[in-house]
Amino acid sequence: MTSAMAGRTRQTVAILTDFGYGDHYVGVMKGVIGSIAPKASIIDITHGVPPQQVTAGALLLRESWRFFPRRTIFLAVVDPGVGTGRLPIAVDTRSGARFVGPDNGLLWSAAEAAGIESIVELRAPRYRLPEVSATFHGRDVFAPAAAWLATGVPIAALGPAMARMNRLDSVGVESHGRELRCRVVYVDHFGNLVTNLSRADFEQFAARFRGQRLSVTIKRHSGIALRCAYGDAPAGAALAIFGSFQTLEVAVREGSAANRFAAGMGTGVTLRAH
Amino acid sequence: MTSAMAGRTRQTVAILTDFGYGDHYVGVMKGVIGSIAPKASIIDITHGVPPQQVTAGALLLRESWRFFPRRTIFLAVVDPGVGTGRLPIAVDTRSGARFVGPDNGLLWSAAEAAGIESIVELRAPRYRLPEVSATFHGRDVFAPAAAWLATGVPIAALGPAMARMNRLDSVGVESHGRELRCRVVYVDHFGNLVTNLSRADFEQFAARFRGQRLSVTIKRHSGIALRCAYGDAPAGAALAIFGSFQTLEVAVREGSAANRFAAGMGTGVTLRAH
Amino acid sequence: MTSAMAGRTRQTVAILTDFGYGDHYVGVMKGVIGSIAPKASIIDITHGVPPQQVTAGALLLRESWRFFPRRTIFLAVVDPGVGTGRLPIAVDTRSGARFVGPDNGLLWSAAEAAGIESIVELRAPRYRLPEVSATFHGRDVFAPAAAWLATGVPIAALGPAMARMNRLDSVGVESHGRELRCRVVYVDHFGNLVTNLSRADFEQFAARFRGQRLSVTIKRHSGIALRCAYGDAPAGAALAIFGSFQTLEVAVREGSAANRFAAGMGTGVTLRAH
Repeated sequence: MTSAMAGRTRQTVAILTDFGYGDHYVGVMKGVIGSIAPKASIIDITHGVPPQQVTAGALLLRESWRFFPRRTIFLAVVDPGVGTGRLPIAVDTRSGARFVGPDNGLLWSAAEAAGIESIVELRAPRYRLPEVSATFHGRDVFAPAAAWLATGVPIAALGPAMARMNRLDSVGVESHGRELRCRVVYVDHFGNLVTNLSRADFEQFAARFRGQRLSVTIKRHSGIALRCAYGDAPAGAALAIFGSFQTLEVAVREGSAANRFAAGMGTGVTLRAH
Repeated sequence: MTSAMAGRTRQTVAILTDFGYGDHYVGVMKGVIGSIAPKASIIDITHGVPPQQVTAGALLLRESWRFFPRRTIFLAVVDPGVGTGRLPIAVDTRSGARFVGPDNGLLWSAAEAAGIESIVELRAPRYRLPEVSATFHGRDVFAPAAAWLATGVPIAALGPAMARMNRLDSVGVESHGRELRCRVVYVDHFGNLVTNLSRADFEQFAARFRGQRLSVTIKRHSGIALRCAYGDAPAGAALAIFGSFQTLEVAVREGSAANRFAAGMGTGVTLRAH
Repeated sequence: MTSAMAGRTRQTVAILTDFGYGDHYVGVMKGVIGSIAPKASIIDITHGVPPQQVTAGALLLRESWRFFPRRTIFLAVVDPGVGTGRLPIAVDTRSGARFVGPDNGLLWSAAEAAGIESIVELRAPRYRLPEVSATFHGRDVFAPAAAWLATGVPIAALGPAMARMNRLDSVGVESHGRELRCRVVYVDHFGNLVTNLSRADFEQFAARFRGQRLSVTIKRHSGIALRCAYGDAPAGAALAIFGSFQTLEVAVREGSAANRFAAGMGTGVTLRAH
């Protein structure tokens, strides 16, 4: 997109935080964006990331970015280190997506999938609010940076270039003989248990044991069948499925797998060939 | 509205789901809409429909649609049968409102009130995402259909016409001598207990017992008075009122009727003439 | 801003309520706004004000308004007296901000900070919905008033002028020798305990005891240190900080002070010089 086009297109700012819905924090960030970039279109991804869970926020951002308009600016704030040395950054990518937030790993997996092109530290006073508090960089640093990008300010104007950004340690999937062991990395609103087992890892495993029955075990509940749709299981039955995250999920048809298995973030899940 | 006008008017897409606020699901649907129809105005009705409660979602949609701009596209997803045989549909109405969602009864009472004009099955691959998952038709089928409608694509282009859509069984109100028996069909955020007793049914009953005192009973708590405003009852008192749903509600002034009476969806409520 | 300019600028309507996220109430208010003022930009401040807590709503509005575009219309509804004698009002201010809501104190501290210029009672039938219910003035009275303002209708057209509006009693901060006693007036999503002790009152106190150590006590937990950033405290430690509200907060690094101290609205907090 040329900069002439940028002027004509309505820019989207998509916001993801752990600020919840009870306070005014997200509203104030939007007020700041509206003050700087009144034509921007603001979309909430979610503000319900579990408080200070950077990994969960990173996962949701990674699953979301590709469904937005090409030059969307993703403003993500899950920031337990606010007021400490962690740097505020913005990232431009080959796919067009831009990311603004703290350099604590939150932005990394989405930005890497989008193809990191350049990283800057948000240091230019001109593109922050006049007073920067110690506690609310979402309002004072990140929202203004996102809004200025939406008005057409180039990313390089926001501050000095950085060579690299922090990444999150990814939790590994382990293979042991006839077993593949993964774990729950997210629990959604319906109580679906989302694991870190990708479809690619699954298919490699399934190819090794072609023709054999596969089943899933979670917390001593074994024999959970793999299904193609929630509706393929009887109401109330547990199932394993590749859901919208493109990773293995354990679900209960018309129920909550989190409640059924008293499971949550970090719970181990095992895929077994029989 | 002529199609020439449609091109000039800013279209509204109003969304109602049971996806909650903790996940990225709604945000991703909005990203899809913004990618296809960048000029559309997106309004959330609510994403807090109790999970998989099609009846509650249908009720909120029926109470909401008439307050929106005339050609609003209502995108509603409460879809326990996703991935099974239930059809994805779009509905055009004589009032101008259009509805997009699963054919499981969710759209029916709103669409009927708006005057059903035509129904299509969402089958045209051109107006879906390239890959349709088994679990997230909100993103892959419904959001694209709503967005394409917002750009001016006619409803007939989305797929073949259908003769009828599924309706929900409505729970009846029963008259027994000096009593009218209804039940709670929705509990709101304030703990107000919304019943299915319409003002018309109430007035017919009241006319039969003109001049007699009427009172309401819920779970052995009798003698609850009918009021015209919450403020007509003393603080802490229970009351019965025709609320914003235009049906009888049991409420507690500055309190929660759901807590006071340990009542919820399905609880019986009786109106009695003395 | 001249009225000619008003016609060209995109007006912002910022909404704050205690309606929560489970119902359709907020969505319907937005539908009404979109029907009257299709070009307005609608921003949610929050709908998570604790039900019927006018003081909490007033606090969030006071902390939010200055971050929005200059002529923003703030539509605030926390309204336990709906249907009683309390008046519906609109307020114009010297800062440009406009406020619409019930005259129960909710609007007062924000409007006063913005510089009250004129107050009107929302009485003109032309700028309400045709039918006004007893229970939902947010939809029938306040949303239409805010929307008409956004289209350029002058505030004086909405109804007769009023000389004054209701204010909330502010809870005082008390000084006793080497102690300053304040209290928690808000608990945010992270469990931070926001008090009513302003930075100005704090600095006056600190100047009196210059060079002495200051610490904070809450519910018999004494010796909590004042910090400049959350990150200055070790993980899990309690701290006192001037947060984004510009008043003293008691917080726990990477934890919840509300849980740690079993504290909430009204809990006393003492600052002491040693």
